[in-house]
Amino acid sequence: MKPIIYLATQNRHKIDEIKDLLGDLFDFRTVFDLGLAVEIPETGKTLTENSRQKAQYIAQNFGGITCLADDSGLEVEALRGAPGVYSARYAGEHKSDSANMAKLLEVLSGSDNRQARFVTILTLHHQGKFYVFEGEIQGHIEAEQRGSNGFGYDPIFVPEGLTKTFAELSLAEKNQIAHRARALQKFKKFVLDDQIFEGH
Amino acid sequence: MKPIIYLATQNRHKIDEIKDLLGDLFDFRTVFDLGLAVEIPETGKTLTENSRQKAQYIAQNFGGITCLADDSGLEVEALRGAPGVYSARYAGEHKSDSANMAKLLEVLSGSDNRQARFVTILTLHHQGKFYVFEGEIQGHIEAEQRGSNGFGYDPIFVPEGLTKTFAELSLAEKNQIAHRARALQKFKKFVLDDQIFEGH
Repeated sequence: MKPIIYLATQNRHKIDEIKDLLGDLFDFRTVFDLGLAVEIPETGKTLTENSRQKAQYIAQNFGGITCLADDSGLEVEALRGAPGVYSARYAGEHKSDSANMAKLLEVLSGSDNRQARFVTILTLHHQGKFYVFEGEIQGHIEAEQRGSNGFGYDPIFVPEGLTKTFAELSLAEKNQIAHRARALQKFKKFVLDDQIFEGH
Repeated sequence: MKPIIYLATQNRHKIDEIKDLLGDLFDFRTVFDLGLAVEIPETGKTLTENSRQKAQYIAQNFGGITCLADDSGLEVEALRGAPGVYSARYAGEHKSDSANMAKLLEVLSGSDNRQARFVTILTLHHQGKFYVFEGEIQGHIEAEQRGSNGFGYDPIFVPEGLTKTFAELSLAEKNQIAHRARALQKFKKFVLDDQIFEGH
């Protein structure tokens, strides 16, 4: 029987990426299965705070259930790490990926320094304890969007060593190298090595 | 925020009794909230085994969620403890309370020894650990059914010191003295004293 883990996210793209990478090893379920009717709060000032807050919220509201939360962000060097924890709402609450990208390209227009990195902080809650896993990937911001896969800033982010944007890669290709995948590999190694799901 | 506990039972009567007694202190939810579509297995040979099996099944199938299972039975002295763990299926699988009571009255007809007791074994699963609480009440089996409250063998069971059957008592009256209520009081005392839900 595969360990059952509820994903403390309402982002279908994140759910797809996680299932694609580790669905063979874990029985990932979602907060939709739990009937969650409100948005999971994320009011932290850092990715780490938000990630922890999401895992804690689901654990607290669903009887200490085992869950995995993800908070991810794009940190642009010329913007001293912005949009960072505000990546998903850079152009305002409930704005679209397009609006966020448009704002970023506008802010960066004329800037020579296009260096950026994607960061993911995963927080696993299991039996009252919290475990944190980080993944990152360096790259740069393109001048315009290319590709239609992925989500978020994928169409304008080119990972170091490649010429394609994340949105021009297949999910399988992105999951070889991306920030979330790297954090998930650490999560996987920890769970397999420490066997915290044994006897469950 | 009240501690959230999922009840590892599909018996609406048990759910009602538990909520009536401790609903002020705990946020009891049910396996129906989790979308459980099959019957929780109970293949143990004792109430204790069944109670543990039910808690373990829900914990295993729903990401280690905190849950409370109940297995209860009627033990008749002249029948050396029968129907006991088979109380709910004494007249056969999926038979009714009426069929079970009719069989018991038939088997006991002519018997002078009507002594019996109700027993409840609760098993709490929380963060990978299991805690057991027992409650019992002595009484006797009447010659015929009286009353329409409660469920199971309530219409033919008269608790020691009373003349009414359980089915002639209100839920509040039954919850002052009955086996399940006694086990629940031990559960409540343990949780409040040991504060295992603190920080959750």
